[in-house]
Amino acid sequence: MTTIKDSVHDYIELDPTAEALLDTAPMQRLREVRQLSTVQFVYPSANHTRFEHSLGVYHLASRAVDRLDLEPDLADRLRAAALVHDVGHGPFGHQTEPAIERHLGRHHDEIDWLLERTELGDVLAERGLDPTAIAATVDGRGPLGELVSGALDVDRMDYLVRDAHHTGVPYGTIDHARLLHNLRIVDGELAVEEDTVATAESALIARTLMNATVYRHHVSRIAGAMIDRASERLLADGVLEPAEFTRLTDAQLLATFEEYGPTADVSRRLRERELYKRAIWARRETVPDRFVGPDYDRTRALERDIAAEAGVDPDAVILDSPSDGTSPESRARIVVDGDVRRLADRSSLVAGLDACAREMWRLGVYAPADHLEAVREAAASVLEIEAEVVH
Amino acid sequence: MTTIKDSVHDYIELDPTAEALLDTAPMQRLREVRQLSTVQFVYPSANHTRFEHSLGVYHLASRAVDRLDLEPDLADRLRAAALVHDVGHGPFGHQTEPAIERHLGRHHDEIDWLLERTELGDVLAERGLDPTAIAATVDGRGPLGELVSGALDVDRMDYLVRDAHHTGVPYGTIDHARLLHNLRIVDGELAVEEDTVATAESALIARTLMNATVYRHHVSRIAGAMIDRASERLLADGVLEPAEFTRLTDAQLLATFEEYGPTADVSRRLRERELYKRAIWARRETVPDRFVGPDYDRTRALERDIAAEAGVDPDAVILDSPSDGTSPESRARIVVDGDVRRLADRSSLVAGLDACAREMWRLGVYAPADHLEAVREAAASVLEIEAEVVH
Amino acid sequence: MTTIKDSVHDYIELDPTAEALLDTAPMQRLREVRQLSTVQFVYPSANHTRFEHSLGVYHLASRAVDRLDLEPDLADRLRAAALVHDVGHGPFGHQTEPAIERHLGRHHDEIDWLLERTELGDVLAERGLDPTAIAATVDGRGPLGELVSGALDVDRMDYLVRDAHHTGVPYGTIDHARLLHNLRIVDGELAVEEDTVATAESALIARTLMNATVYRHHVSRIAGAMIDRASERLLADGVLEPAEFTRLTDAQLLATFEEYGPTADVSRRLRERELYKRAIWARRETVPDRFVGPDYDRTRALERDIAAEAGVDPDAVILDSPSDGTSPESRARIVVDGDVRRLADRSSLVAGLDACAREMWRLGVYAPADHLEAVREAAASVLEIEAEVVH
Amino acid sequence: MTTIKDSVHDYIELDPTAEALLDTAPMQRLREVRQLSTVQFVYPSANHTRFEHSLGVYHLASRAVDRLDLEPDLADRLRAAALVHDVGHGPFGHQTEPAIERHLGRHHDEIDWLLERTELGDVLAERGLDPTAIAATVDGRGPLGELVSGALDVDRMDYLVRDAHHTGVPYGTIDHARLLHNLRIVDGELAVEEDTVATAESALIARTLMNATVYRHHVSRIAGAMIDRASERLLADGVLEPAEFTRLTDAQLLATFEEYGPTADVSRRLRERELYKRAIWARRETVPDRFVGPDYDRTRALERDIAAEAGVDPDAVILDSPSDGTSPESRARIVVDGDVRRLADRSSLVAGLDACAREMWRLGVYAPADHLEAVREAAASVLEIEAEVVH
Repeated sequence: MTTIKDSVHDYIELDPTAEALLDTAPMQRLREVRQLSTVQFVYPSANHTRFEHSLGVYHLASRAVDRLDLEPDLADRLRAAALVHDVGHGPFGHQTEPAIERHLGRHHDEIDWLLERTELGDVLAERGLDPTAIAATVDGRGPLGELVSGALDVDRMDYLVRDAHHTGVPYGTIDHARLLHNLRIVDGELAVEEDTVATAESALIARTLMNATVYRHHVSRIAGAMIDRASERLLADGVLEPAEFTRLTDAQLLATFEEYGPTADVSRRLRERELYKRAIWARRETVPDRFVGPDYDRTRALERDIAAEAGVDPDAVILDSPSDGTSPESRARIVVDGDVRRLADRSSLVAGLDACAREMWRLGVYAPADHLEAVREAAASVLEIEAEVVH
Repeated sequence: MTTIKDSVHDYIELDPTAEALLDTAPMQRLREVRQLSTVQFVYPSANHTRFEHSLGVYHLASRAVDRLDLEPDLADRLRAAALVHDVGHGPFGHQTEPAIERHLGRHHDEIDWLLERTELGDVLAERGLDPTAIAATVDGRGPLGELVSGALDVDRMDYLVRDAHHTGVPYGTIDHARLLHNLRIVDGELAVEEDTVATAESALIARTLMNATVYRHHVSRIAGAMIDRASERLLADGVLEPAEFTRLTDAQLLATFEEYGPTADVSRRLRERELYKRAIWARRETVPDRFVGPDYDRTRALERDIAAEAGVDPDAVILDSPSDGTSPESRARIVVDGDVRRLADRSSLVAGLDACAREMWRLGVYAPADHLEAVREAAASVLEIEAEVVH
Repeated sequence: MTTIKDSVHDYIELDPTAEALLDTAPMQRLREVRQLSTVQFVYPSANHTRFEHSLGVYHLASRAVDRLDLEPDLADRLRAAALVHDVGHGPFGHQTEPAIERHLGRHHDEIDWLLERTELGDVLAERGLDPTAIAATVDGRGPLGELVSGALDVDRMDYLVRDAHHTGVPYGTIDHARLLHNLRIVDGELAVEEDTVATAESALIARTLMNATVYRHHVSRIAGAMIDRASERLLADGVLEPAEFTRLTDAQLLATFEEYGPTADVSRRLRERELYKRAIWARRETVPDRFVGPDYDRTRALERDIAAEAGVDPDAVILDSPSDGTSPESRARIVVDGDVRRLADRSSLVAGLDACAREMWRLGVYAPADHLEAVREAAASVLEIEAEVVH
Repeated sequence: MTTIKDSVHDYIELDPTAEALLDTAPMQRLREVRQLSTVQFVYPSANHTRFEHSLGVYHLASRAVDRLDLEPDLADRLRAAALVHDVGHGPFGHQTEPAIERHLGRHHDEIDWLLERTELGDVLAERGLDPTAIAATVDGRGPLGELVSGALDVDRMDYLVRDAHHTGVPYGTIDHARLLHNLRIVDGELAVEEDTVATAESALIARTLMNATVYRHHVSRIAGAMIDRASERLLADGVLEPAEFTRLTDAQLLATFEEYGPTADVSRRLRERELYKRAIWARRETVPDRFVGPDYDRTRALERDIAAEAGVDPDAVILDSPSDGTSPESRARIVVDGDVRRLADRSSLVAGLDACAREMWRLGVYAPADHLEAVREAAASVLEIEAEVVH
């Protein structure tokens, strides 16, 4: 067995299928896609990649599969799905997801095409593994698909710990060893024993706190929104085919921005970290309901209205209205005296954390430093909110 | 400056007063008092002492004092108070607190007598430090006393991290560097800036999860209850004077149990880890309100009733009904746009965590393994609750 | 399977034999014997016990046994031996070893008597395990005994990492996962593959540096020498039977010192950390060869001579002349192209480290603070060395 | 003060000059230059950048400067030099150094031009800092320049710990807190107190072991040698100006390889991790002296000879003959009883470590997998060495 050293899980042992999958171009590409994309603009140490994360998810899946003592075929499928679960990600991961979905109509978890039309398919075929079943597993469907994508999946168990290790933020340290140790299968579905409730809660808490301090930091969101707008431009203008776009690395996307006039400024700003600033940063209760959530057409129309009112170029205004948070972990299944319940029903924390997520929600309007005041006033007027001053 | 290496904070620099205080018998005694008393029966690595914890609290206080740029006299007082804050603890810390309070009428934070009548007083006098002011500070009173004992004190900041390091449980990792960095004084009281709310919440969360998995683990509570009953016996029978009792180390208390007939069995059971077991482990909602909380006389009467009904010796029944949890951190002061608010008002998590603490509350009835069934039935009848089976 | 949380290895799974062995009084006693005995006088966090260390050694042995895919009987024996390998230690571990050997003629690794005459024997018998074979394994004899006591044993792998974790000193972090992963059996003996040489060297280095900064720190040696002298007194005066002495905990030995007049002062000094100081601290090259090494009778005669010359009580002089260091790891077997070599033959570091150990060697003469000058002059004269001034 | 969170040093506080320097394009570029360049092909977690390392070096320099209580001008210069010390690095850091030196005649530590002709110069000028003095400091010259580049510099203190954190290899954990704490200035030069010798040795050891397991891993060297050859081609063929080449990021260099026919294959091989393999991996004693060391012309001639004898394209042979190691730390100054000595004179380890470095030296000949046998035989013949088989 080949062994790989990992900064989070120490030694990771690869089965032969995993080794062959790793050796393919789609997997190797993940070495050049940062796990936390634009978070490195806030936390300079956050340079870990989707490649090492994929190894970590594979490792946790292997341990879960051993623990649950699954039959070999299912075990093979789960391990393979864990390893390839992120190959569908475009450059800068989640930041280009909406643009890809608009132009390709495909979510990053739908990877049937990758498993069929690339080297990955050859590797799976040689070993008698069914690409369709693996793609379904990555999407959380089929037997124990929830281990890879579900309420308490190994994806989240890895990224919470790994993101904490690399940002230096101490909140992500869930006790995955204990969670894995206490996994059970009840009626064909995953569950944990009741006395693991505190551990399951800790995963939920870790994500809530990581959201607050890392994942939703405004600087990262601003850089992400800039990438989203420039990506949209590239795709709308036909500079790149959507399928081609999806296969770029982070650096290749920046290079493409650089070479195309209308997006060159975004490239320069990202390279020199001369990002847009917050003109508006508004709490949920101050924002009219009809402006909440990432509706693309509405967002664009509002940006144009704000730009017009402020007398600036439309590219100088970015509106960022996230969806309301939900907590997938709250659906985790807990075994209580032989009965299966949801974590939300057993844990008094879940409601508090959901409220907490709502509390942290912000609508942002971003603009270059030299148009900040004009955009702030215009946005406050168009969005009918009080302009909050942020420092 | 003398420097001491610490497993949690790395190097701790001692000012001359701290060095002199450390050199006294009351401080050196803390080397032989485990920080987590009976938790080592569940987490065998939890052998850290109140001595190293005291150094850690001193270290955090020093950093806070530097950060806040306090005038020298107040800084000296706070540092000294931080260092000696635990000298009042009896053997096995919190486990002997109720017995000491019953017989001495004194809480472990009331340490005036120690600062006046021991070497500690000489050290303070030589340096012109006022014992009364320091004793008040340890009790959370006086200028910035809350830094040592308050909603977000350095005591808690140290023990959450230290207890996590030594148990191996990952929940205690609050970001004390960030908390300290963001401390402010507003109207003479401590507060943190609004964008530290997530960090303040994390301290609250850490304590809630540490309660669930470490501090209130039933095995630790059982051993603690056994120590409480035996201590009561020693004191009630006049084997030791209360003041003498308070100055024992953990091991000296065990040796005293061993030498006195009526408590010898408890000593043997603790040494061989042959602890009582749970006969009853009941949730809050199943317990009549009148049986909730650690009322001493009521508890003793109920134990006798249960023993009588079960036909066993009164010493074979221990009833453990903790008080309802409260969360001191929820009172932490947060500065929002120049105004001071309570964390409970700014954080949607606080209510969830309070509910969570209630959820984890349990009434326990403990008995030797060979009387378990008899005691369970008797206790269920006397306490009017359904006997829950625990494994 | 029962699982125990450990601060170093995270979760440790116990097989049923291990669980039964743990439940015996001789194993539970190890909860009250500090792994690093007097090191806590220098590193206040070093309060971990031989109990948690025993669990760690068991854990590493289990992993090695799985890795090597041994047949069940041998695997059982090695695991059991790993768990009980320290039951023979007296109070304060290595510090009372010489006194025990003088009076009992038995080394702490000779534990046949414990495995035959205590509960441990019953547990082994019930499970068909041979106490003699296990005692031999603890002593490094018999099939793969070297896994428990040998050039690269799991004992050392655990303690180097654990002692580093608890002192806060960063030198002990050897890569035991890699060492275990690369263990092989060649001709019935353990060996590691050639590309693990750097890892094997790191174990040797870790021990050398831990010796320099932790294990041989003069404050720890002084406290240890004080315990050795007082223990000798107790045994020589017949206050305790040697066998009884061996079974004490650290605290029980201190209590015994306290109760016996001639050793009461040592007890007080240890409790209040009022230790002897260094009168002499001499390098190897300044000390005549005939005074090197821990010869008991010679040491005592020299102490008397020094005391007489200084005009102080014989108890006021302690001479501490350690043996020259040797490095067991240098005998580790390395597989090079199929041939087995010794680490010393493959590693250019070994000679350097041996020289380094010689460099750190010191002869110490210790005395109470108020006799320091007199003892220094007398000792320099009696030992024919230049008195080096230490600060 | 602006504070940045770092995964290694926790919080790093930036003075205003540092903040302004960070905001320049040359510093921001370091976000896209991996600290360990090709090591990520072996350790997938090794994706940290020269940007975060620069912050770390700045942080340690700040602490040293505070500790040594330097006068403000010198302190400012040392902090600034620490922050910018790596701006001179080309893409893939050390891997393109030889090519840059051949074509530009400039070492990466010579950064006068950068400090004069880029935004960095403007920032320094505004604050009255002398670019020439800072450039000298980066090169280890001038007052306390050795703090930035010397026997025990803060550069090495940061990278050993950071590289260990990110590879997961435990050898880099030197105790920089203790080293910094014990820095002294003696006769205008840095020194450490004698009792810090073990800590200074540990830095030397850490580098030796990191060399063995990380920095000189053959897979990293192979990828590095491939980059060196392709870079030489780009520069020799005039595809890029040397000055332009120096300013590329890692990804931009790969993209340039991709676009230029003769280097396109190297780009593909790096992206898909289809690296050359070892045809020869020879110990120092088997290699004739005249073939030792990185002489460029000789190396190229030998490659051509080997290729001719093997009947393969010259690009299919890479010869890698490193220089013999030296240990800069051995020159560290130690204060012994007021006199200054070199670490090499005080430490018995230094000679052992130097021998150890020689032991790890290897000459490598690398080739594509399909020419491996032919190249091995040809190289063994041309280089007059026995072909060692590597697996």
